[in-house]
Amino acid sequence: MSSAKRRRWHIPASFTARTTFNPIRSIVDRMKISPNPEKQMIALSIGDPSVFGNLDPCNEMVDSVVNCIKKAKHNGYSPSTGYVKTREAIAAEHSYPLSPLTYKDVVLACGCSGALELALDVLLNPGDNVLLPKPGFSIYQTISISRGHEVRHYNLLPERSWEVDIDHLESLVDDRTRAIVVNNPSNPCGSVYTKKHLEAILEAAEKYMIPVVADEVYENVVFPGYKFYPLAQLSENVPILTCGGISKGYLVPGWRLGWVIIHDKHGAFESEASHCMPLNHQPWFLCLHFPLVSFWTVRQGLVAMSQQILGPNTLIQGALPDILAKTPQSYFENTVKVIQCFQYPNYFRIVLTVPAEMTQLACKRINEFCRSHRRSDSKNSA
Amino acid sequence: MSSAKRRRWHIPASFTARTTFNPIRSIVDRMKISPNPEKQMIALSIGDPSVFGNLDPCNEMVDSVVNCIKKAKHNGYSPSTGYVKTREAIAAEHSYPLSPLTYKDVVLACGCSGALELALDVLLNPGDNVLLPKPGFSIYQTISISRGHEVRHYNLLPERSWEVDIDHLESLVDDRTRAIVVNNPSNPCGSVYTKKHLEAILEAAEKYMIPVVADEVYENVVFPGYKFYPLAQLSENVPILTCGGISKGYLVPGWRLGWVIIHDKHGAFESEASHCMPLNHQPWFLCLHFPLVSFWTVRQGLVAMSQQILGPNTLIQGALPDILAKTPQSYFENTVKVIQCFQYPNYFRIVLTVPAEMTQLACKRINEFCRSHRRSDSKNSA
Repeated sequence: MSSAKRRRWHIPASFTARTTFNPIRSIVDRMKISPNPEKQMIALSIGDPSVFGNLDPCNEMVDSVVNCIKKAKHNGYSPSTGYVKTREAIAAEHSYPLSPLTYKDVVLACGCSGALELALDVLLNPGDNVLLPKPGFSIYQTISISRGHEVRHYNLLPERSWEVDIDHLESLVDDRTRAIVVNNPSNPCGSVYTKKHLEAILEAAEKYMIPVVADEVYENVVFPGYKFYPLAQLSENVPILTCGGISKGYLVPGWRLGWVIIHDKHGAFESEASHCMPLNHQPWFLCLHFPLVSFWTVRQGLVAMSQQILGPNTLIQGALPDILAKTPQSYFENTVKVIQCFQYPNYFRIVLTVPAEMTQLACKRINEFCRSHRRSDSKNSA
Repeated sequence: MSSAKRRRWHIPASFTARTTFNPIRSIVDRMKISPNPEKQMIALSIGDPSVFGNLDPCNEMVDSVVNCIKKAKHNGYSPSTGYVKTREAIAAEHSYPLSPLTYKDVVLACGCSGALELALDVLLNPGDNVLLPKPGFSIYQTISISRGHEVRHYNLLPERSWEVDIDHLESLVDDRTRAIVVNNPSNPCGSVYTKKHLEAILEAAEKYMIPVVADEVYENVVFPGYKFYPLAQLSENVPILTCGGISKGYLVPGWRLGWVIIHDKHGAFESEASHCMPLNHQPWFLCLHFPLVSFWTVRQGLVAMSQQILGPNTLIQGALPDILAKTPQSYFENTVKVIQCFQYPNYFRIVLTVPAEMTQLACKRINEFCRSHRRSDSKNSA
């Protein structure tokens, strides 16, 4: 077809690529700075506990993975949603009286980021909106914006230990609001919500009948004196997709094992589509190839989407039941020293997973930097 | 906003979810059959070499991963595109005189499926079309259809050892053709194209100035008497995204380590977008958050998209340089017994990675089944 001939190579990136932006990664992966040669570099940029060797996985975890690879039973494809025994172990650990689970309620993903991607992908169409916490972790909006979702930020209130401003959240809801992301324990705020506050959030979700994506990847990073309540444990009616993983509590973000748990007591995620696809999503060839695909429910859609990437690494999947069973509680108690921050006015973000003496040194340097760059007019108010 | 109140829980799956359909996985993951209790089940459904224990990874590979986990240096986040040393090892193994590479030309992904997802996502917008081989592996269309791409199948010619019907391929090209997927060695056909035929494909790509996505995940599965030519090794001008991984040649599909290699001698993948986004991809809030994102090129877009999932499992990444260096050639020579098939008229698909005696038994059973179900009118022509 000669009319299709082009005169030069012109290959622009797709809209999806051009709207994909991860603010942390964009800075960290592209950072090209020459450190002061007279000082040892202290990186406070990425919330990675494993960098300095002071926060390693425990022996029980390492042994579980080594045993798994030596058995040579976990090299092939797993089911796309993950091995049944892996999903059973996760279901058992996350079953609550109000929300009992089976392995069928668990879909594995490549890290909690992968789980969030599945959850947002299955709930929202382009033009729909999602309510996100502010300050909040940046991956939610990275995912949503690249898909053409609208992101709306609800405020967290610093004066109330970063609780959700529920009035503000409710003011953002409209007909195209398809999900509320609730992050507890919170990154970056470190807050662990009370039972009462979580119930208030659920009440708002129920009032507007909007499902919740609960990012609970920090479930094992709870500061002393606080108690973590899984949102699904408190929910009578609200359908919830709980996203989690072993990255944070188990200090192995590089292992990329996450999950989506489907909490849906009344079958809300079994809804069938009530109307046709809009024209730009209804290509003619679809009908020829797959006459049935438009009937997936949310639950089926999660399974279908997991079939694109075929699950996380099988060695970690195979080791997971042992990892969950054998990691001692004391391991988690040693890790509640993680704190991070985003999107608060005039903030800057550092992570505190480096050893104490390096943190102190870093703070000293930051202090010196601020003092030497302080403008004279700020001295008046100082 | 009370107008937004809903009267019942109604949460349909998104269009993306409803248009995601993996024909193999949909069958295999949902299969519920009661095998004949008097016979041992022989599964010929998934091309997974690891199931029966006759095709395991070699000791060198196992040792590389065990060493990696014991070093405790690969538990944290890698750069989103992968560790530099991992990408360097892949670049070194895939550099050709016509296409020299550095680590910057390699982006890691979760399996070759993840690599294909990156490649198609970065090149195509909804409504654009991609040319796919027929018969061909199903994941290309699974990915593309869920994104609203149009898929157009070009014929492979069985009478010419499944070479591409280039006239047919050219007849499918139009203004919205954004990529040609070339799969060599071929799944399902097992063909390994000659240098001459690959040059003819490249000539067509250059004629219409369409980039190629080269799926070369079977680069180490080459039947005796054939020689595999990486497409990029033969290309003077055509920009190519080569997708690969260790799943097939190294017999560890569950490890989920794949890569995209950017072959782009003349900067075609550095094109900037020449026109605005269409309205449905230009939400107002985008400008507020990220005023610069619409300037990503294909190369930058690949990096940006890798920042959503943050790379494949780091233990495998850490072990990969050793795996590539230490796996003996004899290992690959033992694995060239893999064959699969899709989308050929009246086909059915089996895999032949099961042990020989079980394959023979399975064929015997298939033969018996066919004989007992043969319609009487076919006896005339038999």
